[in-house]
Amino acid sequence: MFFINPMRVQVEEYINTLQNSIVLSLEQLDPSAPPFKRDAWVRPEGGSGRSCVFAIPLADDDSLPQPPTTILEKAGVNISIVHGILPPAAIKQMRADHTSMPLPDSPNGLPFFAAGLSLVIHPRNPHAPTVHANYRYFEITSQSSDTDADAAPKVLAWWFGGGSDLTPSYLYQEDASHFHKTLQSACESHGPQLYPTFKKWCDEYFYIPHRKETRGIGGIFFDDLNSGVHARLPDSQASTPRPRSPDEIFAFVRALGDAFVPSYIPILRIRAKVPHTQKERRWQLLRRGRYVEFNLVYDRGTKFGLMTPGARIESILMSLPETARWEYMSEMGTMEGTEEERLLSVLREPREWV
Amino acid sequence: MFFINPMRVQVEEYINTLQNSIVLSLEQLDPSAPPFKRDAWVRPEGGSGRSCVFAIPLADDDSLPQPPTTILEKAGVNISIVHGILPPAAIKQMRADHTSMPLPDSPNGLPFFAAGLSLVIHPRNPHAPTVHANYRYFEITSQSSDTDADAAPKVLAWWFGGGSDLTPSYLYQEDASHFHKTLQSACESHGPQLYPTFKKWCDEYFYIPHRKETRGIGGIFFDDLNSGVHARLPDSQASTPRPRSPDEIFAFVRALGDAFVPSYIPILRIRAKVPHTQKERRWQLLRRGRYVEFNLVYDRGTKFGLMTPGARIESILMSLPETARWEYMSEMGTMEGTEEERLLSVLREPREWV
Repeated sequence: MFFINPMRVQVEEYINTLQNSIVLSLEQLDPSAPPFKRDAWVRPEGGSGRSCVFAIPLADDDSLPQPPTTILEKAGVNISIVHGILPPAAIKQMRADHTSMPLPDSPNGLPFFAAGLSLVIHPRNPHAPTVHANYRYFEITSQSSDTDADAAPKVLAWWFGGGSDLTPSYLYQEDASHFHKTLQSACESHGPQLYPTFKKWCDEYFYIPHRKETRGIGGIFFDDLNSGVHARLPDSQASTPRPRSPDEIFAFVRALGDAFVPSYIPILRIRAKVPHTQKERRWQLLRRGRYVEFNLVYDRGTKFGLMTPGARIESILMSLPETARWEYMSEMGTMEGTEEERLLSVLREPREWV
Repeated sequence: MFFINPMRVQVEEYINTLQNSIVLSLEQLDPSAPPFKRDAWVRPEGGSGRSCVFAIPLADDDSLPQPPTTILEKAGVNISIVHGILPPAAIKQMRADHTSMPLPDSPNGLPFFAAGLSLVIHPRNPHAPTVHANYRYFEITSQSSDTDADAAPKVLAWWFGGGSDLTPSYLYQEDASHFHKTLQSACESHGPQLYPTFKKWCDEYFYIPHRKETRGIGGIFFDDLNSGVHARLPDSQASTPRPRSPDEIFAFVRALGDAFVPSYIPILRIRAKVPHTQKERRWQLLRRGRYVEFNLVYDRGTKFGLMTPGARIESILMSLPETARWEYMSEMGTMEGTEEERLLSVLREPREWV
């Protein structure tokens, strides 16, 4: 047992491998497109990361802009492994969502470690959905002792979080169903309550109150998953088993991470080839406007990132689409019987897809 | 004296006239463009408004999209006159910025009245700046007495607020100077401290912390202007006169409102004709992305509006540009000696323009 790596090392290895395999899958899908741009960075306050970004550089001259024909329009698959000191105010704030968080009674704050993969993929074709995913591990440790600097710091609190969700501009029931079923299968062997509970959480989280609609057709979302009581899961292990130990929860998160490619790439492969009209492109850009509204106004990760001094803004805002559009009182989506209205009706009332 | 209209009626008349004259000026500038769409609305909770919106409807078929040649891309000039009951929580929150606001000790809240004009103009040409302006009057009154329903309610607190600011994608010093000088002239006869104080306030307000830059080259911004002590103005009337009575402050706000057309239209007339490249258009769309970031993440009016149940979302988000663009780690603006970098250097360190 002595030689088993601590969880932080295991998570770091896993998200590294996952990043490579996701980027490779996307590159293999569209071999004539330029490769993702790999961009390693170091955080001066502690930690590092690697962004893998897809974007088509624009011609600088005034040659008639040839519309690019790549499958992807803009995509980012990022990992970051950062550590530092969490000030008492941040500890206090995080205790609202994380019941195992220690009391903010240490005047100098507490060391934290955070490792995660986060991705957003915006395809070009209006029939191909945008997807977002995130898998993360968080740890709070004791201040390292001065007398025994080599001793590993004690883990005071830890949790996993993550999920993935799909945002189509046009609704294909079979896509929504495939995406959700793949996630459900990944959850199944880890506990019967996981998929239904986290599916519901996803619908609640990715909601745009001022539009009275969800961002997309959902997926799963979870946070604060550790050995303790969880606010959204039944606590009796006998009646409804769930992953509880660090290893069990990590296995669950790996199952979800491994399910990402099979949940999304088959959809992208088919929908990227669907012929589309200018009008459908316009609707896609209006939907991208909603994506921007959700991310900038409500997304907790984005808001937290923008307020963190020294945060890497380019990584945080990488989730925004290449182009978004806003029309005053747009008529698109208002006419009953249209495909645009059919999508909206699903966003206004989340459905079961499996 | 008995027949002088109460301030709310005077303000309502003024913003009605101002809206007409601004929309007319814009329409006269580009006679071949479609007229603004006038759109009157009623707020079920009390009040009404009129949106005047400019947008080019897109062709629904797939005919090669002819790029429109209008001077404006998207513009809205809106007035709203609303009233209702401000709940104690809202009163409490507003007391932070409005020292004359009564204590939130009335369990049923207090009646309010708000009238204002607000406009955003996004021209098509990347050399023509976006402009935003807002002029508003707010009033809190006592609950009307049951015994004397005809008696005018007592005004417990009131203030004016407003301003206008310019957001160029390319810096023309003479434009910035003309815009600011016109505002300064409008302020001058009302008090020597008004322009310098409100110019500084504008630079502070329209700041995007996560980008470490201002939204544009500023203008003036003020709030909570009434007869009482003002947090940003010297209080000694002897040494530095300032508008103090309702009539004096209203005269100052009218001077600013009347200065809008001469401050902006001459700039738009010249810059709308400047030849431009695809690259300059790309930079304009990136700058529009920043505009969206400011409005959705920081603008108090937008945030307050989005959180208000029953608010008219289409009016609140009308300020967003037709199209915005985001690039990961864009090289535009990073190269010294370019026009893009020259703009950024001014946004990073606000300047005096008069």
